[in-house]
Amino acid sequence: MPAPARHLVILSGGLDSTVCMAVAGRDSGPSPVALTFDYGQRHRTELDRAAAVAARFRSEHLVVELDASRWGGSALTDATVEVPDAAEPNAQQAQGEQAIPVTYVPARNIIFLSVALGVAEARDLDAVYLGVNALDYSGYPDCRPEFVEAFRRVAAVGQKRGVEGRPVEIRTPLIELTKAGIVRLGADLGAPLELTWSCYRAGPAPCGRCDACVLRAKGFSDAGLDDPALSPSVSTP
Amino acid sequence: MPAPARHLVILSGGLDSTVCMAVAGRDSGPSPVALTFDYGQRHRTELDRAAAVAARFRSEHLVVELDASRWGGSALTDATVEVPDAAEPNAQQAQGEQAIPVTYVPARNIIFLSVALGVAEARDLDAVYLGVNALDYSGYPDCRPEFVEAFRRVAAVGQKRGVEGRPVEIRTPLIELTKAGIVRLGADLGAPLELTWSCYRAGPAPCGRCDACVLRAKGFSDAGLDDPALSPSVSTP
Repeated sequence: MPAPARHLVILSGGLDSTVCMAVAGRDSGPSPVALTFDYGQRHRTELDRAAAVAARFRSEHLVVELDASRWGGSALTDATVEVPDAAEPNAQQAQGEQAIPVTYVPARNIIFLSVALGVAEARDLDAVYLGVNALDYSGYPDCRPEFVEAFRRVAAVGQKRGVEGRPVEIRTPLIELTKAGIVRLGADLGAPLELTWSCYRAGPAPCGRCDACVLRAKGFSDAGLDDPALSPSVSTP
Repeated sequence: MPAPARHLVILSGGLDSTVCMAVAGRDSGPSPVALTFDYGQRHRTELDRAAAVAARFRSEHLVVELDASRWGGSALTDATVEVPDAAEPNAQQAQGEQAIPVTYVPARNIIFLSVALGVAEARDLDAVYLGVNALDYSGYPDCRPEFVEAFRRVAAVGQKRGVEGRPVEIRTPLIELTKAGIVRLGADLGAPLELTWSCYRAGPAPCGRCDACVLRAKGFSDAGLDDPALSPSVSTP
């Protein structure tokens, strides 16, 4: 009988969270609990990919429904807001602008981490893994180290576990990696990158033009690897 | 046509959150948005009372389903854990113990505030009201000022609104009041206290013995008021 899981991974079915599954497996046993949110995202393929990844790790897979599309406010959940093509990666940063795109989902990682802390506490798990990354990312405020640090404080003072002196840990093993570094780490750990989905759009194949597709392609390119999720027949729609 | 709502109130259907509705109404117009969570609580009456309170304020009422009973860990959501009778109010504190009861729901207010921040940001509301109280309370860590302060930091650094310099405010107007003070404030503001439900148990009438019932009764007694939610026929089951 396998040892009980000690960790929980917030799993979207994308590249970063799938690499997090592999990191959590390396750290503490092969089958962390996987937690996925069905928040009304337009790219529903994510949910299927998350299930496939969890199955590959033989992990328990919790899917929590929380319909953010009811309150709107993001291109990822609101069909009336168009997903834009990627901007030049560093142009906005070079101008010193706050460049938070319309694909930002209000409080998404705040909500994900909150529920994860609840599950981890109820199950007496040691840590929550979140695959945020503040280097090659889309500029979301809830992917930055200062956000994670603020949330650690919430876990420390706002949960019974924290007050008792052993807060649920929040681990972000990818936060300082480049996208290429994440791809390399995943490949090294044997993460099933071929199962992952990054595209923001709801098409049958990745669009290749949205911010998520462009960042992913650059990551594989810089790592000197082919993207195993792209077959030649679907990579140029 | 009424002015659009500027505030959101996390409304459980209990005494404290109903008084918060009245405070928000006083602060910024009569009909704040009301946000209620269906988290699998055993005391389902709460949900009906929340709807009745929201209707009384002519407020938009959002009910978000999030089934915490799936991951368990609390007497309020897990039918296998019994709701205890109230302990002597100050006995545990006098012993200097951390006395967090089994009715604690892992990360409940963390999750509630997270979703509230998301809704408030998507709707461009100014503030979220949460009826926590750290004086006459059950010892939950997520009702204390240090928890609220930690969450304000999350809103400031983890949301687009915060990064842009106008974070969603988190207001806790009851946090330093006694239960009697809350009762008096509600009565002064004309809050519909007769519609509210506090009992942790799922019976047809308040049990009168759980922590929530005992705190509420003491609040009305100390305020010198009768509890309008109790008719003589149901107050002694």
